[in-house]
Amino acid sequence: MAENFELLHTVSSPRDLKKLSPEELRRYCDELRRYIIDQCAVNPGHLASSLGAVELAAALHYVYDTPEDKIVWDVGHQTYAHKIITGRCEAFRTKRRLGGISGFPRMAESEYDAFGGGHASVSISAAFGMAKAAELRGERRKVVAVIGDGSMTGGLAFEGLNNAGASKRTDLLVILNDNHMAIDQATGALKNYLLKISTSVHYNRFKQRLWGLLSHTPRLLRLCQQAGNAVKQGVLNKSNLFESLNFRYFGPVDGHNLGELVRTLRAMHDIEGPKLLHVMTVKGKGYLPAEHDQSVWHAPGCFNPDTGERIAPKGGPARYQDVFGETLLELARLDARVVGVTPAMPSGCSMNILMREMPDRCFDVGIAEGHAVTFSAGLAAAGMVPFCNIYSTFMQRAYDNVIHDVAIQDLPVVMCLDRGGLVGEDGVTHHGVFDMAAFGAVPGLVIAAPMNEPELRDLMYTALRSGHPFMIRYPRGCGEGLPWRGEAFRELPVGRGRRLRDGSDVALVTVGTAGNAAARAAERAVEAGVSVAHYDLRFVKPLDEALLDEAGRRFRRVVTVEDGCLRGGVGEAVAAFFNAGGYDVRVRSLGIGDEWVEHGTPAQLQALCGYDEEAVLRALLAAAGK
Amino acid sequence: MAENFELLHTVSSPRDLKKLSPEELRRYCDELRRYIIDQCAVNPGHLASSLGAVELAAALHYVYDTPEDKIVWDVGHQTYAHKIITGRCEAFRTKRRLGGISGFPRMAESEYDAFGGGHASVSISAAFGMAKAAELRGERRKVVAVIGDGSMTGGLAFEGLNNAGASKRTDLLVILNDNHMAIDQATGALKNYLLKISTSVHYNRFKQRLWGLLSHTPRLLRLCQQAGNAVKQGVLNKSNLFESLNFRYFGPVDGHNLGELVRTLRAMHDIEGPKLLHVMTVKGKGYLPAEHDQSVWHAPGCFNPDTGERIAPKGGPARYQDVFGETLLELARLDARVVGVTPAMPSGCSMNILMREMPDRCFDVGIAEGHAVTFSAGLAAAGMVPFCNIYSTFMQRAYDNVIHDVAIQDLPVVMCLDRGGLVGEDGVTHHGVFDMAAFGAVPGLVIAAPMNEPELRDLMYTALRSGHPFMIRYPRGCGEGLPWRGEAFRELPVGRGRRLRDGSDVALVTVGTAGNAAARAAERAVEAGVSVAHYDLRFVKPLDEALLDEAGRRFRRVVTVEDGCLRGGVGEAVAAFFNAGGYDVRVRSLGIGDEWVEHGTPAQLQALCGYDEEAVLRALLAAAGK
Repeated sequence: MAENFELLHTVSSPRDLKKLSPEELRRYCDELRRYIIDQCAVNPGHLASSLGAVELAAALHYVYDTPEDKIVWDVGHQTYAHKIITGRCEAFRTKRRLGGISGFPRMAESEYDAFGGGHASVSISAAFGMAKAAELRGERRKVVAVIGDGSMTGGLAFEGLNNAGASKRTDLLVILNDNHMAIDQATGALKNYLLKISTSVHYNRFKQRLWGLLSHTPRLLRLCQQAGNAVKQGVLNKSNLFESLNFRYFGPVDGHNLGELVRTLRAMHDIEGPKLLHVMTVKGKGYLPAEHDQSVWHAPGCFNPDTGERIAPKGGPARYQDVFGETLLELARLDARVVGVTPAMPSGCSMNILMREMPDRCFDVGIAEGHAVTFSAGLAAAGMVPFCNIYSTFMQRAYDNVIHDVAIQDLPVVMCLDRGGLVGEDGVTHHGVFDMAAFGAVPGLVIAAPMNEPELRDLMYTALRSGHPFMIRYPRGCGEGLPWRGEAFRELPVGRGRRLRDGSDVALVTVGTAGNAAARAAERAVEAGVSVAHYDLRFVKPLDEALLDEAGRRFRRVVTVEDGCLRGGVGEAVAAFFNAGGYDVRVRSLGIGDEWVEHGTPAQLQALCGYDEEAVLRALLAAAGK
Repeated sequence: MAENFELLHTVSSPRDLKKLSPEELRRYCDELRRYIIDQCAVNPGHLASSLGAVELAAALHYVYDTPEDKIVWDVGHQTYAHKIITGRCEAFRTKRRLGGISGFPRMAESEYDAFGGGHASVSISAAFGMAKAAELRGERRKVVAVIGDGSMTGGLAFEGLNNAGASKRTDLLVILNDNHMAIDQATGALKNYLLKISTSVHYNRFKQRLWGLLSHTPRLLRLCQQAGNAVKQGVLNKSNLFESLNFRYFGPVDGHNLGELVRTLRAMHDIEGPKLLHVMTVKGKGYLPAEHDQSVWHAPGCFNPDTGERIAPKGGPARYQDVFGETLLELARLDARVVGVTPAMPSGCSMNILMREMPDRCFDVGIAEGHAVTFSAGLAAAGMVPFCNIYSTFMQRAYDNVIHDVAIQDLPVVMCLDRGGLVGEDGVTHHGVFDMAAFGAVPGLVIAAPMNEPELRDLMYTALRSGHPFMIRYPRGCGEGLPWRGEAFRELPVGRGRRLRDGSDVALVTVGTAGNAAARAAERAVEAGVSVAHYDLRFVKPLDEALLDEAGRRFRRVVTVEDGCLRGGVGEAVAAFFNAGGYDVRVRSLGIGDEWVEHGTPAQLQALCGYDEEAVLRALLAAAGK
C-alpha cells in the first residue's frame, strides 16, 4: 500500500520536513500515524504514547533546527514519530529486534537523539546541562526537554526544575506533554493540579483569546504572557506551580492541533530563560482502540490494525507477574497488615488485581521509586507489611532508600523485583542485571530468587512471615507451568537451597529461573554420559554455605549459572567461598559479562551472553573434560 | 556548673517537659542550647542546625503526645535538642563515639526516634507511610515530618508531597524548617521562592494580624486559613507552590518564638489532611559565632565555647578534599571544558575553591544527587568535562543516573567520590562502603582509587584526558603528606596497578588508601621474617589482570585489603579471577564483612572490621604460616 504513504517517503530528515506546506505537514502526520500503527501491529512496541506525540514531534522538527538544536525526549516511549522523521523510516521496521534500532532514543543511534531515554524524569536535568554547556561555550543552540505528566511526578524532574528555574538566562524550554497518564492512569497531587489548570472553562476561554491576540512578535507574547499569569491567577484562583519555580508558564495548548503547536513554538522560540509549555495530548490519539483503553495499548503486542483485535500470545503458563498479583491478593486477605505499593506500574506488575479488590490497601504512588521504598518503610515502621513491587531496572533508583530506610532499620518491607534478568526487546536500559551485585552487598537483606511459580508464591508467604527486609527477584514473562493457584502456602527456610539432582562428575549451581534451562542442560549432559549434580541456591543472600560445602567437598568442577552480571554476582561469591574455605574446586561462572546487552528476544540475548541451555550444556561437558 | 542547668536535669522525657510553665519552657530551652554548645565544644557534632531547632523540638514535644505521636526528623542534623528532651541528656555526652549514641535519629536507639535519619529528603515519604498505616489501622496518632529548606530541594521530598497531597484525609503535618541553608547556602528556584514568601513585608503584616485573630478554635483557624490564602495571593501576587500540591500552607512563623510556635501547633493540631507549616529559623541561633558563619559552624569540630575560637586540628598533611579542590581549579585553568558540579556540598568537598575563582564554571545544584549526575551527563553530551563530586554514601542516590545517563552513553563525566570507605563518627548512614561493589558491576566505568595525594591529582588529570566515564574514589581526612601541590601532572595508564615492594612468601594486594596501613604492616612483616610482595591495584575496574597474573603465578598465598564491603568487592573479584584462571592461590580478603558498622573513629572502626595495620600484619604472618 505504498500509495498510502506518498509523503512519508519524501521525508528522510527534518530538512525535508521543513519543505512541507502546513497542509502537507498535516497529511504527513496522518501518514506517520498510520505507519506507526501498521508497523507496531506486526512488530510490537510502545504504541499509544507515540501516537500521542506525532504532531508534537513534527512541530518540533518543523520549527527547531535539529540536530543543531537539541530535543531531549523523556523516557522515549513517545519517540517513534521522531525516529521516523529523522531518517529511520525504513529502520523502524527493525525496532527492538536484535541488530535493529532501539525502541528508545540512543545517542549512539542518531545525532538527532540528543540524549538517551529509558527511565523517566531525566530530560529536564539533561537538557539543562546541555543548555548550560551551550551558554558556557557561547553557542546559540536551543534546548528542549519533552516530558510527560507521569514523568513529571519523578523527583528528578523536580530537582531539574528547581535548578534550572534559578538560572534566569539559560535558554531552556520544557514541554509538558500532558495526557493524564503514565503507563496507567497518572496519580498524585500534581495530576489533580494539572487537571484543574487544563479543564478550567474560564481559564481556557481567556487563554483562547490571549493566544488569538498573538499573531506575532515575541515581545508582544512576552507582555501577554506576563499579563496572562496575573489574570490567570485571578481567574483560576489557583497558583501556578511552575511559576513558583521561576519557569514562565505557557499554555495549555492542544497537542494535536498542528497549526497551534507550530505557531506557539515559533512565538516562544526567542524568549529567553526557563519556560514551560503545557501541551494537552491524548494517549493513543488517532487510533480508537488505543484511545479507549490507553493502559492496554501502551504496549499492546501484535494486533490487527484494521479491527483493533489484539493477537493474544498462545495460551501457556501464567506470567510471573500474575502469580505475584494473585498471591498478593490472597496474602492481603489472610493478613490485615499486607498492603501493596507500586510506583506507577499497577498493570505492569499485576498489582491491579489487589487494587481492584482492596483499593484502600494498594498505593500507586506515581513514578517515584525512591518514594515508593521509603513510603513502604514508613508503613512498615507503623505496623504494616508492605509488598513494594518495582522492576529490577527501576529499583536502581531506590538503591539508597533500600539501604537506609529498609535495611539499616531492619523493617519488614517485602521488595518484589519483577523483570529481573534480561528483559528482551526493551534493551539495555531495561535489563534487570545489576540487582544481585548491588543489593547483594547490603547487610541485613534477604534476597531470594524463585525458580518457578510455586516458589515465588511460597517465597512471598515466607517473606510475610519473616519480619525482616526481604527481596524477591523474578523475571519477565511466563513461568514453568507448575501448579500454584490455590495451593497451600509453604514457609521456606531462609538462606537454604536444595539439591535438585545428584551426580558425580560436575556440580551445577544455579540461582533463580536460570536454573530451568540449566536443568534441561543437565538432563542432556547426563544423556551424554556426564553425571551432574544440580544445586539450586534459591537465595542470593544469605548464601547456603552448607549446600556449597557439600558441593565443594564432593566436586572438583562447578558450573554456576545466573541471569545477571557476573561481576559482583553469585558465581563470584561462590568462587570466593570455595577459595576462602580452601576447597579444591574450579568454578566456571555463566552469566552476563562486563558489557552492555542490547535488545533482542530474551532467548537470543541469553545465547549471546552464553548462559542459555546450549551454553550450560557446553560448560558442563567441558567441565567433565568432554 | 550544674547550677546553670537546673531545669535541664528535671526533664527526662516529654512528660516532664509538659509540666513546665511557658516561662520555664523558655528557660529550659536556653539551658538546652547552652548544654548543646558546651557538649559540642568538647565532643564535636552538628552544632548549628541543632541550635536552630531547639525551640521547635521543645514545642513539638510540648504539644504532641510523643512517642505515641510520631515526629520524623529529616536528615537528623537538627535533632540534638530532641535527643536531650527524650531521655538522652547524659548519653548525649557520648554522641558519635564508639558505643555511644548516634548523631542521627535511630529507631533502634529510642522509641522517640520514629524513623532514622542520615540522608536528606526522606521524612515526608516516611511520615506519610506512618500516617497511612495509622489510618488503615484505625489509630488516631498524629504524624509530623520536620524538613529543612535544603532537604526540600531533594526530589524525594517532592515525590512525598505529590503523593501525600493527593490523600485528602491523611493526617500529616510537614514542618518546613527554613533557615535558607543546607550545609552551605541553599540554592535553586525553591530557595528564591521561599525567600520571597518569608520576606514580603505586606504579607507578613497581614499574617501578623491573621494569627492575632486566632486565639482559638480549629474551625476558625480553618476559615482564616482559607481566606488567608486568597488574600495572600492577592498580596504577594505570587502563587503558593505547596497549595498547588494540595497541602494547606500555614505560616511563616518565627521558629524561635516559643509562644507563637506552641500556639500555632496547638491551633493546627486537629486540622485534618495534609498541611505544611513554614517555620523560619536561624541556623546557629543563640550562639553568635555560629550565626555569623553558618557553614563553618555546621560541624565546627572542637571549640572554646566562651570565645568561639575553633580548636584547629594539629597541622598535618592536606586533606584529600583540598587536593581535589585545588587540583580542580588547576585543571579548570588548563582546560576550558572543565566544570564542577556539586549537590550542595561545595565546602564539604572543597569545590568552593573553584567556585570562588570561577563561579560560572561551578554548579551547586542543591541537595539533588540524581540531578547532579544527569545534569553532568547533559553538560558532557554538549562538550564539557564535568567533575561531579558526591560523597560515596550520597552517590548511592544516583546509582541509576550513573548507569543510564553516564555509563551507557559513554559520556566523559568525572565522578569524584569523596568520603569513600569508613567515615568514622557519622556512622552507619554515612560510611561509603558499597561503592566498589555497586559500581564495579557497571560496564564501561573506570573506577580508580588513589593511594595518596599525588595519585589523586594524577588520576583527576588522567580522567580529564580519558574521554570516558571515570570514577575516582578517595577517603575522608588527610593524605599521606606526599608532595603534590604544583607538581607536574602525570597521565596514569588506565587499569594498570603496580608492584610497590617485591618479596617471595606472600603477596599483598591492596586498592586505594587502605594500602598505606597495609604497606606499614608489610614492612613489619618483613621485619618479622616474612617476605611480602605488595601490589597496589590502583583501579577497582578494570582490574589489572597482568599484575594479578604475576601475583598468581608467583604466590600461593595472597592477602587483599580494601576499605569497603567484601561482598562484591575487590577481594572477591581477585579470588574469582584466580579461580577462573586455574591459579593455585589461596586468597584471604580483609575489608568490611556483611554487617553494619556503627560510629567511632575511623581507626577504631577499621580495627573492629579487621583491616587496620595490625589486622593486615596478622593476616600476612598467618598466610606465611607464622
